[in-house]
Amino acid sequence: MNLSLYSAPGSVGVASHIALEESGLDYDFVTVDMVNKEHQSEQYLKINPKARVPSLFVGDEVLTETPAILAYVAHLAPASSIALPDDPLAFAQIQSFNSYLSSTVHIAHAHKKRGSRWSDDDEVCEKLSSFVPVSMGQCFDLIQTQMMKTPWVHGDSFSISDPYLFTICRWLEGDGVDIADYPLVAAHFQRMQERSSVQHVLHLQ
Amino acid sequence: MNLSLYSAPGSVGVASHIALEESGLDYDFVTVDMVNKEHQSEQYLKINPKARVPSLFVGDEVLTETPAILAYVAHLAPASSIALPDDPLAFAQIQSFNSYLSSTVHIAHAHKKRGSRWSDDDEVCEKLSSFVPVSMGQCFDLIQTQMMKTPWVHGDSFSISDPYLFTICRWLEGDGVDIADYPLVAAHFQRMQERSSVQHVLHLQ
Repeated sequence: MNLSLYSAPGSVGVASHIALEESGLDYDFVTVDMVNKEHQSEQYLKINPKARVPSLFVGDEVLTETPAILAYVAHLAPASSIALPDDPLAFAQIQSFNSYLSSTVHIAHAHKKRGSRWSDDDEVCEKLSSFVPVSMGQCFDLIQTQMMKTPWVHGDSFSISDPYLFTICRWLEGDGVDIADYPLVAAHFQRMQERSSVQHVLHLQ
Repeated sequence: MNLSLYSAPGSVGVASHIALEESGLDYDFVTVDMVNKEHQSEQYLKINPKARVPSLFVGDEVLTETPAILAYVAHLAPASSIALPDDPLAFAQIQSFNSYLSSTVHIAHAHKKRGSRWSDDDEVCEKLSSFVPVSMGQCFDLIQTQMMKTPWVHGDSFSISDPYLFTICRWLEGDGVDIADYPLVAAHFQRMQERSSVQHVLHLQ
């Protein structure tokens, strides 16, 4: 089964890219040039009418949305570092954490530069942008105090939540949040940067 | 295994409640009185520090986030109407649709009354609220033209995406969106209301 990831540097697609590296599966990587709005081109909209990255081709079928891509790649690689746990409730907790990243943390971040999704008023978008250090800080308070285990997000076992959290943590400095305020998260960020999968993916960007 | 759903009338927890009814599993239902801010009480924050509903107790463990709860309940009920497909890619597509509802559609809706998550400026919140008919309309354009199959979201088989879409469609009128503009969605909404699970859950509200 051919796997091709369409993604862009610095985007949330980095999470899926790292997961593919960790999986040991063969895959192709295709850069979508978001700077030149390739994600809004007629050609790309045929792949993903949401005009977002990442998109994963699985044969001739397209899968979108990071939590779904991550879990699917993990499913394909049961002998890898991102193997899914046998316990359905443990899998559900991974999905829960990833859903929080997707629907709360990534959304808080998106108010920095993507305010036009929720307002056509430039002044409103500027004000949304200025609040991002607060809302992202609230998210990471919760992650640090209520969610994070160590050394990995869910404890002893590495999982698909780890590249996802790492990818979002790369945005913190730009969002005006100091990762050092969240020691468990900062240590995790450091630990991730030591992995060859992460070094490989970031080298390509 | 004891299952207890903590949720509130009209909230996104309706989706998990309908899924539990469809599952045929035994479960308890506990109303969280959000009008009186019970979701922010010390007692509830011990259950769910995110101060959100729904929360599903599985024995003494708590599972949060609708996409994770729905998939877990479906996993527990392989002989029910919400049984998960055997094909991992078909399951991934269900998760993808649910992730879109969670991280895009529900978020567009949340800008109606929950703008304080992204701004502490009352005027900004009012302007966010006024844009919701546009952003929700964009979401349902995409659902109608690119995503919806019939009679159910994913085609012939009912799935956990159906109660989730139905739950969000209940918000459309308040969001200033006319469901009649989206014929596939409107027909689905009608079809859902004919199910005994839906009638049971809505009767309790």
